[in-house]
Amino acid sequence: MSTPKTIAIIGAGTIGASWASLFLARGLSVRCSDPSAEAETFTRAYVDRALSEAENSLDLAEAQSRLNFLATPGEAADGADFAQENAPERLDLKRRLLAEIEESIADTAIIASSTSGLMPSDMQNGMTRPERFIVGHPFNPPHLLPLVEVVGGRQTSQETIASALTFYAEIGKRPIHLRKEINGHIANRLQAALWREAVHLAVEGVASVSDIDAAVVAGPGLRWALMGPHLTLHLAGGDGGIDKFIGHLGPAFESWWAELGSPRLDANARTLLSEGVREEVGTRQLSELAESRDQALKNLLKFSKPLF
Amino acid sequence: MSTPKTIAIIGAGTIGASWASLFLARGLSVRCSDPSAEAETFTRAYVDRALSEAENSLDLAEAQSRLNFLATPGEAADGADFAQENAPERLDLKRRLLAEIEESIADTAIIASSTSGLMPSDMQNGMTRPERFIVGHPFNPPHLLPLVEVVGGRQTSQETIASALTFYAEIGKRPIHLRKEINGHIANRLQAALWREAVHLAVEGVASVSDIDAAVVAGPGLRWALMGPHLTLHLAGGDGGIDKFIGHLGPAFESWWAELGSPRLDANARTLLSEGVREEVGTRQLSELAESRDQALKNLLKFSKPLF
Repeated sequence: MSTPKTIAIIGAGTIGASWASLFLARGLSVRCSDPSAEAETFTRAYVDRALSEAENSLDLAEAQSRLNFLATPGEAADGADFAQENAPERLDLKRRLLAEIEESIADTAIIASSTSGLMPSDMQNGMTRPERFIVGHPFNPPHLLPLVEVVGGRQTSQETIASALTFYAEIGKRPIHLRKEINGHIANRLQAALWREAVHLAVEGVASVSDIDAAVVAGPGLRWALMGPHLTLHLAGGDGGIDKFIGHLGPAFESWWAELGSPRLDANARTLLSEGVREEVGTRQLSELAESRDQALKNLLKFSKPLF
Repeated sequence: MSTPKTIAIIGAGTIGASWASLFLARGLSVRCSDPSAEAETFTRAYVDRALSEAENSLDLAEAQSRLNFLATPGEAADGADFAQENAPERLDLKRRLLAEIEESIADTAIIASSTSGLMPSDMQNGMTRPERFIVGHPFNPPHLLPLVEVVGGRQTSQETIASALTFYAEIGKRPIHLRKEINGHIANRLQAALWREAVHLAVEGVASVSDIDAAVVAGPGLRWALMGPHLTLHLAGGDGGIDKFIGHLGPAFESWWAELGSPRLDANARTLLSEGVREEVGTRQLSELAESRDQALKNLLKFSKPLF
């Protein structure tokens, strides 16, 4: 596969619009389709905002001129050499879209899905050329957060996986390769694991929701923006690295593992989390918080990038 | 309790030296004791490095003049109005030190322990005035990471807890209050929960250690430097907040929870993690990595501070 120049974006909600912003920022052309009448207005406004916040100055009008909205998925795929599908998480719907995409996209094109919940083997089942299908799951918002989880299905070719990893890396993403299909991929499972214990501690009344959140942000969270859990523990082991760390603190971690909680999101938990997070937010507006977060994310990336 | 002016540091290894740096940077006086002959040289060098890297310019010689090394814990505690104990994690040793501290420290002083593994009720058992004892567990390195987990034992007074929370906040820490004693406190349990699933995914061969680490750093880790897990999900719910999020994605999280792994740190896991992390590190020096991380942490804190 030569590097794609024209990307079909199928489904232009928040994820699709953010992918479009990224592809446009990298100088690629984008052909979009979405059944909603408001999708084009929404996407163009999203792109303007995302690109005007980008560090390198971009000609917004020129970038918008590389974005085209087409009436159907087939028309969007026509002339594209890579597709990124971002439709709602329904297998039947996504399968129908994949059929429309592969009917008109370039023979050499990779067809990627942003799905967080469906398995690639199920999705590619029924495709004419299933070997060129992958999951390319981004982390929200894709134009800011570098992670893309690349997972092939049983019928995906090794070449497709290698090409997709190369392409995502070339446009500045940090792709990772999942060798097995697994529910939640990797990042959402890790997020779920952390949140499960956070919910357990809240439900058990060990601390307030606000204090549990602060225990992450003011402690390990700051390090996780720079290093993953294994490298963190490797450094914690000093000259002896992770071997020494596990030798010394492995038993403590195993004893904590044995005691971690298994909460349920029942009515009691929901009320407690809802009230707790509202107390944490206080008088701050959600929109302000989201904006501060995105601004801070951009700054964080400058410092964290060299480390991963 | 009026704000402490003179702090006794009992045990001047890495944690004690980092606490000393923080207290000195805040203009307080520090009285240290440690049985090792090298402790003073080590601590003074640590303080010089930590303070010369601090943003606000500090007179190093003046700061060092506020640091005194004494021969015994009792002498270090004499004249102090707050104690921070950082001895090895042995209950008998810590109890002996607490007895020496309380014999000579000011009547109004709080006696805090940095313990990560012992329970305050066990530690204060046998003290003359157990009501003034707390755990004040920092996150390493304490002079950089804001978190302090404050936990009282059965005999700790409410006043002691309130005063400790106030004092730590006054010197720029982010103290959180644990209402119950629990193994691993909060942050290490959350860290253990995340690492457990990371080990599971590595052992199951879902991805390389390096890619699993990247899944954190390039994805949720960047957000956890800014917001804890609950606030993150609250924002993910849009206008409907965490209620809408749980209504929509709660079942998906519960299904992931049910599937999270329970690995063991057996010989196979240790070899795999050790080889994986060495591949991740490659030719980079651990000392360089640690230095880059600490430098980046200082920069991150500038951007994350307003959010928690």
